[in-house]
Amino acid sequence: MNEASILAKLPRKHRNLVLGIGDDAAIYRPKANEDLVFTTDLFIEGVHFKSEWNRPPGLSPRSLSHRALARSLSDIAAMGARPQFCLVSLALPKWATEQWIEEFYSGLLNLADQTNTALAGGDLSNAKYFTADVMLAGSVARGKALRRDTARAGDSIYVSGPLGGWRHRESITPRLAEGRKLLGKATACIDISDGLAVDLHRLCLASKASAALDDIPIQEGATLKQALHDGEDYELLYTAPPRTRVAGLRIGVMQKGTPSAITLHGQPLEPLGYDHFRTRT
Amino acid sequence: MNEASILAKLPRKHRNLVLGIGDDAAIYRPKANEDLVFTTDLFIEGVHFKSEWNRPPGLSPRSLSHRALARSLSDIAAMGARPQFCLVSLALPKWATEQWIEEFYSGLLNLADQTNTALAGGDLSNAKYFTADVMLAGSVARGKALRRDTARAGDSIYVSGPLGGWRHRESITPRLAEGRKLLGKATACIDISDGLAVDLHRLCLASKASAALDDIPIQEGATLKQALHDGEDYELLYTAPPRTRVAGLRIGVMQKGTPSAITLHGQPLEPLGYDHFRTRT
Repeated sequence: MNEASILAKLPRKHRNLVLGIGDDAAIYRPKANEDLVFTTDLFIEGVHFKSEWNRPPGLSPRSLSHRALARSLSDIAAMGARPQFCLVSLALPKWATEQWIEEFYSGLLNLADQTNTALAGGDLSNAKYFTADVMLAGSVARGKALRRDTARAGDSIYVSGPLGGWRHRESITPRLAEGRKLLGKATACIDISDGLAVDLHRLCLASKASAALDDIPIQEGATLKQALHDGEDYELLYTAPPRTRVAGLRIGVMQKGTPSAITLHGQPLEPLGYDHFRTRT
Repeated sequence: MNEASILAKLPRKHRNLVLGIGDDAAIYRPKANEDLVFTTDLFIEGVHFKSEWNRPPGLSPRSLSHRALARSLSDIAAMGARPQFCLVSLALPKWATEQWIEEFYSGLLNLADQTNTALAGGDLSNAKYFTADVMLAGSVARGKALRRDTARAGDSIYVSGPLGGWRHRESITPRLAEGRKLLGKATACIDISDGLAVDLHRLCLASKASAALDDIPIQEGATLKQALHDGEDYELLYTAPPRTRVAGLRIGVMQKGTPSAITLHGQPLEPLGYDHFRTRT
């Protein structure tokens, strides 16, 4: 098996693209009055998933690729954007058999189809450890993308669903429809990838504001600590003016005061969460 | 050192971007009548460069990042496009010190500045081996991008410079200006990343044509074999109608006949070159 034979099995064309896989670069023709949003996420064996996951009874290659793409889709959801296409770079170790690679792409293309995301290209290499880097492009009406630096004191804070229960989930469901419904209503938005406390801290830092939390909706079977500090929830966290009606669960209010300070029931809440770099400090 | 402290040192804004580093996704506002082109290239320790290169007297972190970005820029050059922005994903092993990472970004930003490429975002993780994935976006007038599947029998074949001499070069110079000058003149174009024979084979396969080569321009100090089969040249390989005047060195002619067959002075030329997957077959 070589790079050409892997690429030959992947879809060539897609309605959104002038040119997909097979040239030096993919070609995308922007529509009038759209902004494009771009994100990329690494997914590395031994870091984002345990090496054993690649062998039964661990995560299947389909689950792995679903997760790798879903993480980038969640970023696009947090911008209120519609996914357009992805570039997928794969570094493949020797244990990745032809069947494993086919199943990986099959899982990826399954979620890509569900979300109208074209596979437009990527790169392939061998390596000692499995690494995927998924770049995703989305589109949104010009000037309307949801950002994290635009929350205002007095805004209500919401999450798109109860938190802390990711361990009980089969797979991540990116909140794409939820994100798009916030366009023109939410003042700021971020996805909860590293934990509510950390991601709210990031939103507060960017918006130069603080936050006071009261009710934290917790998934059945999860603890408050998991709801506050566990990553991998992939719900949306957003703000909206108090009189604006938005879907979701209200968890607090944005405030003036020390930028990025967060309280829960009046007590300081430390922005602890999942950080790959913690071990490097 | 953590992810936030690395990102804090990188440039925040760029004229081409509505929003750069620091949100869930970067925002790019397309101009009227432009197509956007996208490529991504992996650059992995032990595969694309030897592990020893990260330590003196090997390649410096600046040279490494120059090379990682230049490979993607070369793809954009081959489309005749103008670079706009890049997303850079880095997986960093323990040996990558703060100073090493700073110098890596310094080299990257140096070439990015020279080529008007914004650093719009990326991802960071720890890992056992250094891995970079550089996604690059470029723009080109609508419908004008140079492709590899549009060469025609009778077209002359050119390269942008003599081949086989990459070992003598300090660094890769992406042929961006040369690529843009081919717009509206060349019928097809590809960059020579894996060797003339392999990359011409790819162009012929895509264009469903064959090729007859005569003169091969060889870099001083290189052999014909190196000029034909060594990768890393990063010159452009392109075709144009015989009466169209284009810059470059003429090396042969596109022909009808067995798709992808290539001859040199009438003798069959095997499409051998650099292929990371050869060891996997």
